[in-house]
Amino acid sequence: MSKLILHEYAQSGNCYKIRLTAAHVGVAIERRDYDIMAGATRSPAFLASVNPNGRIPVLQIGDDFLPESGAACLYLADGSPLIPHDRFDRADMLHWMFWEQYNHEPNIATLRFWHAFVGEDRLSDLQRVQVPAKQAAGAAALALMDAHLAKTPFLAAGRFSVADIALYAYTHVADEGGFALRQYPAVTAWLARVAAQPNHIPM
Amino acid sequence: MSKLILHEYAQSGNCYKIRLTAAHVGVAIERRDYDIMAGATRSPAFLASVNPNGRIPVLQIGDDFLPESGAACLYLADGSPLIPHDRFDRADMLHWMFWEQYNHEPNIATLRFWHAFVGEDRLSDLQRVQVPAKQAAGAAALALMDAHLAKTPFLAAGRFSVADIALYAYTHVADEGGFALRQYPAVTAWLARVAAQPNHIPM
Repeated sequence: MSKLILHEYAQSGNCYKIRLTAAHVGVAIERRDYDIMAGATRSPAFLASVNPNGRIPVLQIGDDFLPESGAACLYLADGSPLIPHDRFDRADMLHWMFWEQYNHEPNIATLRFWHAFVGEDRLSDLQRVQVPAKQAAGAAALALMDAHLAKTPFLAAGRFSVADIALYAYTHVADEGGFALRQYPAVTAWLARVAAQPNHIPM
Repeated sequence: MSKLILHEYAQSGNCYKIRLTAAHVGVAIERRDYDIMAGATRSPAFLASVNPNGRIPVLQIGDDFLPESGAACLYLADGSPLIPHDRFDRADMLHWMFWEQYNHEPNIATLRFWHAFVGEDRLSDLQRVQVPAKQAAGAAALALMDAHLAKTPFLAAGRFSVADIALYAYTHVADEGGFALRQYPAVTAWLARVAAQPNHIPM
């Protein structure tokens, strides 16, 4: 495999997903940190050479750049036991990963960012007015996971996959966004199962 | 393959992506329509038996249910030429699909839904206040696509893939959300290339 460089912000759950996948498949990645609070991913150099979308994470593979955490995790896990062999199970893993980016991350990760990194006092009016809807949608996402995980030990195919890595990243720090994980016992039991996997690394 | 049933709303671009993928791989799907404006996907029966997330599309495969349009498209296209063989190209296709769900759909599809289906007069205050930010983010998404498609005929791997299907769905009706596609010449040329593919079907 070509040399791997992760363009990242260490406290981002999306970046952590990629490091956690790399740890599970046993590949080394070099880390390059950007101060997103200071706009480092919106600089002309970053936009021109790393990601025109102005966001981290980006996984650099040799001279190629791969944005989007889900794509980077699936690249790293390609051919490994982290991806189910069965066609439906593999698609079901992808379902949870798309669901995370649409229903979970924009609510739970965004509220964590606003609450723990930006600060309540510095929110814009547009951000502030969206807080209640994001609280409700984030709680609904955790409740949906809880109902599912009450029936199965892992999200897809009944065993540990990239879907668990993708959902673990922001779920295990949901308290930082104002959510009470203790209200979701099947989720907290699953978080412990994920953290107990061999080769697990903390954020 | 087991019998396929698409639980859908015909005017949804997310549902169209799945029908378009099925047309390209030549598999028949039965269609079951839900009146989302009347809350048909929030009924207890739908939540219990089709999708606890209360959303369409869901691809039913025999007795299994697969939510999330991207997962359903990738399930149908599995093993077909719509998925690049090369490891990086395949991940790059996924990057565009995740990008679509995070950066494109919540802006362009949502404004189309609010504008053409809900109606300006019926928007809630919370929806109304988000319109300018979604207009800006949607225009940025189209500009990013335009810059990319000025350099390559298709989004990933230089050839037609599931990424093109996923982005075509809401891009080709972006005017219905108040965007002016004529401002993005590389996008409009790409839309014509996608629509000219053998087995293409309209929404």
